[in-house]
Amino acid sequence: MSYFRDNIEAMQAYVPGEQPAGLARIIKLNTNENPYPPSPAVARALAEFSADALRVYPDPRVGTFVRAVSDVLGVDREMIQAANGSDNLLVMIARAALQAGRSVAYPGPTFPFYETQARIADAKILEVPFEPEYSFPLQGLIDAAASVTFVANPNSPTGTTASVQQLETLAESLRGVGLLVVDEAYVDFADATAVKLPSRYENVIVLRTLSKGYSLAGLRLGYAVAQPGALEQLWKTKEIYNVGMLADQLGAAAFRDQEYMQANVAKIKASREKLSTDLQALGWTVWPSQANFILARPPAGDAKGIYETLQADGIFVRYFQHPDLADKLRITIGTEEQNAEFLKRIG
Amino acid sequence: MSYFRDNIEAMQAYVPGEQPAGLARIIKLNTNENPYPPSPAVARALAEFSADALRVYPDPRVGTFVRAVSDVLGVDREMIQAANGSDNLLVMIARAALQAGRSVAYPGPTFPFYETQARIADAKILEVPFEPEYSFPLQGLIDAAASVTFVANPNSPTGTTASVQQLETLAESLRGVGLLVVDEAYVDFADATAVKLPSRYENVIVLRTLSKGYSLAGLRLGYAVAQPGALEQLWKTKEIYNVGMLADQLGAAAFRDQEYMQANVAKIKASREKLSTDLQALGWTVWPSQANFILARPPAGDAKGIYETLQADGIFVRYFQHPDLADKLRITIGTEEQNAEFLKRIG
Repeated sequence: MSYFRDNIEAMQAYVPGEQPAGLARIIKLNTNENPYPPSPAVARALAEFSADALRVYPDPRVGTFVRAVSDVLGVDREMIQAANGSDNLLVMIARAALQAGRSVAYPGPTFPFYETQARIADAKILEVPFEPEYSFPLQGLIDAAASVTFVANPNSPTGTTASVQQLETLAESLRGVGLLVVDEAYVDFADATAVKLPSRYENVIVLRTLSKGYSLAGLRLGYAVAQPGALEQLWKTKEIYNVGMLADQLGAAAFRDQEYMQANVAKIKASREKLSTDLQALGWTVWPSQANFILARPPAGDAKGIYETLQADGIFVRYFQHPDLADKLRITIGTEEQNAEFLKRIG
Repeated sequence: MSYFRDNIEAMQAYVPGEQPAGLARIIKLNTNENPYPPSPAVARALAEFSADALRVYPDPRVGTFVRAVSDVLGVDREMIQAANGSDNLLVMIARAALQAGRSVAYPGPTFPFYETQARIADAKILEVPFEPEYSFPLQGLIDAAASVTFVANPNSPTGTTASVQQLETLAESLRGVGLLVVDEAYVDFADATAVKLPSRYENVIVLRTLSKGYSLAGLRLGYAVAQPGALEQLWKTKEIYNVGMLADQLGAAAFRDQEYMQANVAKIKASREKLSTDLQALGWTVWPSQANFILARPPAGDAKGIYETLQADGIFVRYFQHPDLADKLRITIGTEEQNAEFLKRIG
């Protein structure tokens, strides 16, 4: 007898990257945060917010933020669902679409939280390995024909992408078969988006977050774009009030300031190209990234040793136990100064 | 073929009480919010918070708030789990402990979100009717011997309570059988708490929220008290970062100001007694409440008509379709002025 379900007792909890104390003294390139602060419009919205307003429940539809997203993207409000981070949306999708007897597919290696959701739901897991050089395993995902297919695009930790055409082919193949969830957490740093697919495919859900491009990881705010019929099912599985008032107001302010976000993204993309070139000059292998991080292999493949040495020195990067990743590091793009300091330590 | 699980497609979404626009002009006694603003310490914490801090992920352990709860309650930090409102904790419990073949019990009528969670999990539902005058159906819940027993205490919408002794008897009976979740959302307005039970019973989880006593419904913050072994299982089912930085900081500030909270609670309890007496003088039946609302039956039982008339007049109270409740209204305790206005309209 156990008070909890057998699959829960047996599973390991998802382990996020370290959040060390004393941020001022360390260089944190391990959890893909934006090195620049959020838009000044966020500080203004915070200053204008009255604490007294918190007395009542928030708008369950998160109307201020959803209107901002609708206005900026030109997507109907009925196709937008806000949530407490995109991890909240992944939970909603798992609860609505997964159970024992249903299946989950994703390219591997990827964001481990998809596997976490599949294990909680007791769903069958079909990890489809990437093709060589982490190119997108389109045919493998079509053949998997899963109830829910998760595609992080750009993918973490590889930084690589599927083309919108590939995603559309996958959506078409999965029609009547299962959901295609395109997790665009890093899309602000990429060249293309699948955000228009849901208007044509009733089985596509695109996830976005304000944690990366908008520098709001500490706020917790994400959103889904999908057809109203799909959002109606997700809605049934959410917390009654899953987004607080501050996220609604501050998130809207950040989202309406596209110019500020794009300026930061341009800086980060330029730094990404520079860091990639500099690492290659040191003999590292760097995979082409469309995200705010790069996956890179040191010349001797001694990723774990370098990770530990850097950490002892106050520089945090991400190391994964996954067999395919054990000789590589994922390095978040920092400020120019942070990247230079990182290069100095490994050079 | 459906993209979603059959039980999700078939179920109705939980419908929260109306959140009408134009709060200044209406009297909102329908969702058990606190009529007084949060502690001035919350406004100070908000003013001191730098928007730039939101750039990075929050502490997944929500350490500032958890330390405040631990200090104030004298409960070990290892026995406290913060969450995005107590509805987030109910979701975590359902994911960790419920599935087809497991069962849920609760006294009825109660908070409908327990049934929502059972339906999502496809668990068997055992609603145990209250004894006459809404007294606690202890034996019925013992006999149900469910995998998870939910007891809202004080209960909504009745305002009635189980004694701590009854809850301890239930916990003892359910040992080795299932979890007892004591939802203390309204405990700040009650005479007793079961918060010490988890230290003696490994199967008891006590839920608390800052939405009611602390006037922070718009912030989204709750917490569970349970033994570390139980919290370890819940932890596996949560979002990676389920509580944002602002909730961590503002929640801690509110929780450390017990004096302010208690002063508001004293006012609300006095208003609750006065409103009960005044309604009884008008011929209404009022059940004894230990919450910040009362359940009351108008002399002619025409609750729905009164609800609609009041709403047309800008006064919102709560009406439930449940057969046992169709002749009653749940009225949140407002300010003295709001309660007087409500009485004037029905008098």
